[in-house]
Amino acid sequence: MSEASYKKTVLDPWGTTVIEDYDRLYEEFGIQPFKPLLPEMPDPNLFMRRGVIFGHRDFKRVLDAMKRKEPFAVMSGIKPTGEFHLGTLMTAREIIYFQQQGATAFYCIADVEAYEDNKIPFERSEKIAVGNVADLLALGFDPDPKRGCVYRQYTEQRVRDLSIIFGRGATLATMKAIYGERNIGLYMSALIQAGDILMPQLQDFGGPKPTVVPVGVDQDAHLRFTRDLAGKFRRKYGFVPPSSTYHKIMRGLDGSPKMSKREPMSYFTLTERPETIAKKISNAFTGGRPTIAEQRKLGGIPEACCIYEICMFQFVENDSDMVKVYHDCKSGKLLCGEHKDQATEIILNFVKAHQRKRRKLMDKARQILRVSK
Amino acid sequence: MSEASYKKTVLDPWGTTVIEDYDRLYEEFGIQPFKPLLPEMPDPNLFMRRGVIFGHRDFKRVLDAMKRKEPFAVMSGIKPTGEFHLGTLMTAREIIYFQQQGATAFYCIADVEAYEDNKIPFERSEKIAVGNVADLLALGFDPDPKRGCVYRQYTEQRVRDLSIIFGRGATLATMKAIYGERNIGLYMSALIQAGDILMPQLQDFGGPKPTVVPVGVDQDAHLRFTRDLAGKFRRKYGFVPPSSTYHKIMRGLDGSPKMSKREPMSYFTLTERPETIAKKISNAFTGGRPTIAEQRKLGGIPEACCIYEICMFQFVENDSDMVKVYHDCKSGKLLCGEHKDQATEIILNFVKAHQRKRRKLMDKARQILRVSK
Repeated sequence: MSEASYKKTVLDPWGTTVIEDYDRLYEEFGIQPFKPLLPEMPDPNLFMRRGVIFGHRDFKRVLDAMKRKEPFAVMSGIKPTGEFHLGTLMTAREIIYFQQQGATAFYCIADVEAYEDNKIPFERSEKIAVGNVADLLALGFDPDPKRGCVYRQYTEQRVRDLSIIFGRGATLATMKAIYGERNIGLYMSALIQAGDILMPQLQDFGGPKPTVVPVGVDQDAHLRFTRDLAGKFRRKYGFVPPSSTYHKIMRGLDGSPKMSKREPMSYFTLTERPETIAKKISNAFTGGRPTIAEQRKLGGIPEACCIYEICMFQFVENDSDMVKVYHDCKSGKLLCGEHKDQATEIILNFVKAHQRKRRKLMDKARQILRVSK
Repeated sequence: MSEASYKKTVLDPWGTTVIEDYDRLYEEFGIQPFKPLLPEMPDPNLFMRRGVIFGHRDFKRVLDAMKRKEPFAVMSGIKPTGEFHLGTLMTAREIIYFQQQGATAFYCIADVEAYEDNKIPFERSEKIAVGNVADLLALGFDPDPKRGCVYRQYTEQRVRDLSIIFGRGATLATMKAIYGERNIGLYMSALIQAGDILMPQLQDFGGPKPTVVPVGVDQDAHLRFTRDLAGKFRRKYGFVPPSSTYHKIMRGLDGSPKMSKREPMSYFTLTERPETIAKKISNAFTGGRPTIAEQRKLGGIPEACCIYEICMFQFVENDSDMVKVYHDCKSGKLLCGEHKDQATEIILNFVKAHQRKRRKLMDKARQILRVSK
């Protein structure tokens, strides 16, 4: 992205992604901007305060339940294809946030999707899932059955049953429009995902209630599909249409538009060796100038900087710390090398503590997933 | 059908359906004629002897297992949309025959298909299934778990799991070619049906083995689809491609090409009042002549007669009795009224005895399906 395009944006420490990119989503798909709801949020999290969560569908319904202390649920999950990375970390933190705000929290291991879409056999995804759930617990998820439910799609009969029920309401035209020409297995897994999203409203879990699904904006199609099904089967189940919040998609550390397994330098996982993570941070794409002299004179471009982005999205909790970095960078006071050192320290402190907690939670994760060692 | 078209056929007491209709199936779809295998069958049943079962795929594999006393299975089922009629009676008898020949017998209640295709809610199909299973037991099915397995698709996890596994092997193009543009639920139910056909080969049931699926020829698409999937997943499961036998489709009693719920005079169910059944028989379409004098002179046309057909397909066990009727009709000796009286007596004797047995087996059926009263 050229510097010129950044000039169009106002001075905004939370504006790493040019907002115009998202305007289209509001207009074309009917996603609502999250910002107007922010003042009403009892205790907004970092993602909300910084516009990382930028949009929603029908979130007012959930907000009202939160304010009135009425039952509500949060639901999201992970496709067990590998270790926790910064994307799955974000979703996990969003779920834990809503759980701490009073939601019953549902965390789905999308092993059917991993099988149908990525050919991961269930024997393998089961093992991967144990690690993923240990991560979730290490991040603070409360697995008490009164407050939290962690399950695998393949073994959760209620979700599978809902997919059969919903099958009658899913036309081929809709599936092709959303997912393209795919194997029937992929369509089945889409129906199972609709089951995931609506299971919290079954009588087993206290019946119909507002439910928020925090996801990356690339998952919106699933939400629209499920909201449509919720309407079709409302008479029998009393479903409340599920709400959603949308977070921005983090760029790759190497400056690529999206973190990707195919580019190991574009991302790191929470189980990687700290030295490797440090290496990736030190090689990351920043908004620095060609020379120190230029940077001192013109300042850096935090909006273009991947280090700035991951700190702002995930690792620096205090807003004023982030604002300071923003202005120090802009003014040329903070150089990229210094900032990388700061970021490395913060991130490695987190990662090391996380890895210690995670190791101790592997048995608990196995127990929750009913997987033998 | 004109008398002229019957003249093309040779004098054949088992030739109620013009054989040319079926030749296309051999040529176009690769179904094999059953007749050449008949001399090898240790104890052929009525359907085989009379060409009602006219074709097969890969049945030699099953025949060899029968002759060598090796394990084999038979699998078929019923869509629980209503009471047993003459079509479901035929399938049930075929399964029971193979069970008595030594097969482990699987009888599937296709409640998912009834839901996806006919909108029958599971609460309702569950009740219908109890009656269907009582019919099956009354006909002689042995429910001993070592020899027989009766189950509902919706609650049989192994079948549902196989449908998920097979999902990856089912392309949209194949599904559209076989089933046309349908809701995804219908495609899911097709994958579940593939699971039905291959479940007998899971380790829970002793592993891979020849399996025969006796069905009406209109079900061949399911078999081709499942045989294809058996190949795709052979490496993991060791599946033997399932075999099939095909029976002819009985015409309606009113002379229509197929018995249909929309035409109550075209069929009867095994739970109907005997008086109603007698009425339907007396109104049935026959191969009689306009006047008694003409019939005495020219003889009747048993090939066109629905009464002759149901007796030959289902109700007269002794072949020589059937041959006698055929010739007595042809020669003008047996008039339609007399034949209807004979048939009514045979059929009502069977139906009344069946209804008595069935009533006593309802509790057993509930127990097998784990349905409360």
